[in-house]
Amino acid sequence: MPMVQIDLRRDVFEEKGTAISKAIHAGLMEGLDMPEDDLFQIFRPHDDGEIVFSPHFAGVDRRDLVLLRITMVHMFPVDTKSRMYSALATHLEAAGVRHEDVLICVVEVGFEDWYAGTPIRGEVA
Amino acid sequence: MPMVQIDLRRDVFEEKGTAISKAIHAGLMEGLDMPEDDLFQIFRPHDDGEIVFSPHFAGVDRRDLVLLRITMVHMFPVDTKSRMYSALATHLEAAGVRHEDVLICVVEVGFEDWYAGTPIRGEVA
Amino acid sequence: MPMVQIDLRRDVFEEKGTAISKAIHAGLMEGLDMPEDDLFQIFRPHDDGEIVFSPHFAGVDRRDLVLLRITMVHMFPVDTKSRMYSALATHLEAAGVRHEDVLICVVEVGFEDWYAGTPIRGEVA
Repeated sequence: MPMVQIDLRRDVFEEKGTAISKAIHAGLMEGLDMPEDDLFQIFRPHDDGEIVFSPHFAGVDRRDLVLLRITMVHMFPVDTKSRMYSALATHLEAAGVRHEDVLICVVEVGFEDWYAGTPIRGEVA
Repeated sequence: MPMVQIDLRRDVFEEKGTAISKAIHAGLMEGLDMPEDDLFQIFRPHDDGEIVFSPHFAGVDRRDLVLLRITMVHMFPVDTKSRMYSALATHLEAAGVRHEDVLICVVEVGFEDWYAGTPIRGEVA
Repeated sequence: MPMVQIDLRRDVFEEKGTAISKAIHAGLMEGLDMPEDDLFQIFRPHDDGEIVFSPHFAGVDRRDLVLLRITMVHMFPVDTKSRMYSALATHLEAAGVRHEDVLICVVEVGFEDWYAGTPIRGEVA
């Protein structure tokens, strides 16, 4: 159950939001073997001045930052994460987002750190 | 010191924001024995297309996602978290949010990961 | 590569956003010895009712919350974090934000939890 928060410019969201959403979903399915119905994304369009970034940090030609923050269960080895980054960047590039502009950050949590609308009372710990 | 970020539809926020805020606070007090004056919530109302979710993942009939992201210190056992989820879902249901629509994610940090306005210089590490 | 998300009132952002951005950057450089070109900040201006907080939790006279959420690699000892908090609060105070109003939360991740626009295929795990 990865949950993805996406910070991006408002005009980029308006122009390419649907394509970006599909690209992220495709990237997670390809990179993590995530099932197709595991889809949770929150877009946060930003106005001028709200996204502040270094255009050249780590030797990358960055022009227009798109930040993906992925919260997911700690269960994937490093090479799977690496495969996920590649899949995400490739699909996002096809959706019109330069891979240099992509910044991804993974935050890992445990299985017990999620509640997803399951029955209220009588849950098994 | 749990800090809660809530992503929800703008019309839901406008209609039920105050009730949702109180429900979350009541749920944390009941579920974690949190003191009443420990209250930190950030609401993020969203417009159309910004919240993307699977309506049926995990066999739940999801219609209108309300995402709670709770950042809190790693100190609670799993059954306390489970009790917290139940308390939150129950209070949110009373505030007009179907429990099926609630998605909660806990991110745990350490005691040393907070600064809360205490004196600037001369802090003890 | 700390990445900072800042939640604050819209009028505070409009009036002092640039100064706050520079203060945060200066605080991280001073507190973590962060290189100058390591700059990633996302501002989230909020309208009335979206930021809910206790005015007196932990004995602090809080009037107008400014939340900094810093995602960074787990590599700094506790006293370095403490130095960072002091540096951030001092620089923010100079930018017109009372240190009592500052709430900082650090979320730590691993080196392998970042992708920053580097080559798409052929990454080394």
